[in-house]
Amino acid sequence: MWDLHDHVVLTSHPRIANKAPAIHWGAASAHERGPIIATFADTKMRNAIGAHSGSYTVYRALAEAAGSLKHNHRPDLTNTSPVVDIAPNPAWHDPTRIVSMDPYGARIQQDFAHLLEKDIDIRPTIAITRASIQMPELMDAIRKGIIPVDGTVVKSTGDVVVTKVAMEPVWYLPGIAARLGIDEGDLRRNLFQRTGGMYPELITRPDLKVMLPPIGGATAYIFGDPQGFSDPKKPLAVRMHDECNGSDVFGSDICTCRPYLLYGIERAILSAQKGGAGLVVYYRKEGRSLGEVTKFLVYNARKRQPGGDTAATYFTRTECVAGVQDVRFQEFMPDIFTWFGIQHIHELVSMSDMKHGALIKAGITVGKRTTIPADRIPHDASVEMEAKKAAGYFSDDKTDLDLTHVKGRSIHEY
Amino acid sequence: MWDLHDHVVLTSHPRIANKAPAIHWGAASAHERGPIIATFADTKMRNAIGAHSGSYTVYRALAEAAGSLKHNHRPDLTNTSPVVDIAPNPAWHDPTRIVSMDPYGARIQQDFAHLLEKDIDIRPTIAITRASIQMPELMDAIRKGIIPVDGTVVKSTGDVVVTKVAMEPVWYLPGIAARLGIDEGDLRRNLFQRTGGMYPELITRPDLKVMLPPIGGATAYIFGDPQGFSDPKKPLAVRMHDECNGSDVFGSDICTCRPYLLYGIERAILSAQKGGAGLVVYYRKEGRSLGEVTKFLVYNARKRQPGGDTAATYFTRTECVAGVQDVRFQEFMPDIFTWFGIQHIHELVSMSDMKHGALIKAGITVGKRTTIPADRIPHDASVEMEAKKAAGYFSDDKTDLDLTHVKGRSIHEY
Repeated sequence: MWDLHDHVVLTSHPRIANKAPAIHWGAASAHERGPIIATFADTKMRNAIGAHSGSYTVYRALAEAAGSLKHNHRPDLTNTSPVVDIAPNPAWHDPTRIVSMDPYGARIQQDFAHLLEKDIDIRPTIAITRASIQMPELMDAIRKGIIPVDGTVVKSTGDVVVTKVAMEPVWYLPGIAARLGIDEGDLRRNLFQRTGGMYPELITRPDLKVMLPPIGGATAYIFGDPQGFSDPKKPLAVRMHDECNGSDVFGSDICTCRPYLLYGIERAILSAQKGGAGLVVYYRKEGRSLGEVTKFLVYNARKRQPGGDTAATYFTRTECVAGVQDVRFQEFMPDIFTWFGIQHIHELVSMSDMKHGALIKAGITVGKRTTIPADRIPHDASVEMEAKKAAGYFSDDKTDLDLTHVKGRSIHEY
Repeated sequence: MWDLHDHVVLTSHPRIANKAPAIHWGAASAHERGPIIATFADTKMRNAIGAHSGSYTVYRALAEAAGSLKHNHRPDLTNTSPVVDIAPNPAWHDPTRIVSMDPYGARIQQDFAHLLEKDIDIRPTIAITRASIQMPELMDAIRKGIIPVDGTVVKSTGDVVVTKVAMEPVWYLPGIAARLGIDEGDLRRNLFQRTGGMYPELITRPDLKVMLPPIGGATAYIFGDPQGFSDPKKPLAVRMHDECNGSDVFGSDICTCRPYLLYGIERAILSAQKGGAGLVVYYRKEGRSLGEVTKFLVYNARKRQPGGDTAATYFTRTECVAGVQDVRFQEFMPDIFTWFGIQHIHELVSMSDMKHGALIKAGITVGKRTTIPADRIPHDASVEMEAKKAAGYFSDDKTDLDLTHVKGRSIHEY
């Protein structure tokens, strides 16, 4: 049944007989840059470390083990191409400005048709579709006239039309290292050793510079026409949102995540309605990229500590448990904006100085910064909010509270 | 700055001088089972493949590379322990009944205190906290009296109190292979080769039987008191929900995911209010575990195909693109229910025969199956719904439609 060899080669990139196309990251055209090949149809063609679909590569491997997915399956890409064309811009041809995604990831049928015809298994890392969304909070705002019906973005039914873009992470390792200000070798060694040995090629194949890591990607929700993104004169409201399942889906009142997301979407729609566009990007970085187990441990520690869950100790509790306050690496976040050709953001819906700083560093200017209105902050989330303001996060509303008095529920008060 | 050796050892589990405690999966007590050590404080103590936090291990490795997280950090677990005690049940002592999570994952401070005191870096893989949630749809149902206020689970403010449990995947590889009906060696080879080489130890260390894969875990939302879970006489309503970010968060109308989730929560609350409990488990299996890029490619193919997006071709389009309809592996899903000691589910809110079948196979009996009421199905989602019913999914509402006439929007109709 299996076409696996009894002798397992521990490196999937044998140095001999390697016929893989070279990748010249940031080259002047897709043709010169070359395709990224992270599939297994012909391992000699592979020119990247890792595999497609982020962490779902593990499920795909299970399906192959179980025999429900054939090893030799090739995707039929008929009719899958993007519903809007995101055209190349100069940043695509610069090896330093986009380092965490493949700018040509949505265009493989356009740019690498000649290779696909030769049966080389190149896969999209970006997919662009259209959707109609219904969010109860938006429908309420539409009913109340806070968000007007325009018939294009906002329908009279309360439906909101979006173009959405899903992106898998594709890392150009020298660029990732440069963003973090570290040596590429140190990056590779840490990634290999501190994950328990994922991808020996990080060590054995320093010539392979591109890696598809097994992590979540990002999804961009576009309101209005993305063709205006690169025109700094057209209004553009933006929120970059890091996943928080407990709030985004389940509405937990310990944080402001879903209310902030909704406020960002509302501002994005209003910006689109002013002849511009809006953009909300959702990054799979649950619990500051520490994951939900760590997050819940921290919640318990916050709510049981002597003195209660106060804004004064908000950050320390995460640091005690996780060793670090935050590992979201906003350094890579701007790549998506750069990819779209965005040079100026008129309204940034975020209080995070890390996000703002990363955009500025990427050469993207920011007009106004707006923060969530006070009446949308859930009660228990005031701890987070005041701790962030005191730590210097941006806010329209500067108060000078005694942080030990801004207190959330104890573990017994539910 | 780095404490890394210049000479990188490609296996993180040197065979020599291994002093790691043995794991006897399914042994009669935590002590006999032994701790799972997947940390790097002392690599000679490691007795598992992979690392903690699922795919977020990659971010942690980045943080160590960037110097923001110290290599020698140990979590301070003060006050982090579970808010409810999930007591061991006989299934914990059976190597076959729980294979995808560590039953002792929430109890390391109880069960392995003597090892933690010796500074051995054992970490929780399960965390249990409490939360107060506000979901607009629930608040509306509470306002309308569909969900009554009881003062304990449902407050007069519209807040709903939950106990929530986050779980990291911990795989006992012989058990995983047995569930899939395949050879453990085939499983290990596929996992290694078809992910691009994650974890050489899958090949080099067949003696290591436990793996923490870099995938998302699951979160259980408990309504009412979990202590009654194991009493088959106490009402229990359940939904197991596989992540769908586009609907769960953004309310896309192409599927029934968020409406189904909300209906499951509603039934769970009502069951808790009848003196029993409710349980909604959220599994990180985006897009049938194929990921969002594949999902969006499929949406485009569905909406552009000749004849339009009909129920008749719903499943084939995923298979064309992905090579398989679904890779969610419901085979492992019941482990969480088994871990809780659940023997009987009074009401299962799901139309999936795969989920139902997996529960039955795990020895969990099911009373009533309920499906989403027709008036909660978004218009464009009727394609999915009718395709599933025709494919034999369970439904209260058996219709006999011509599937080519159940049609969603084309790509131009937004």
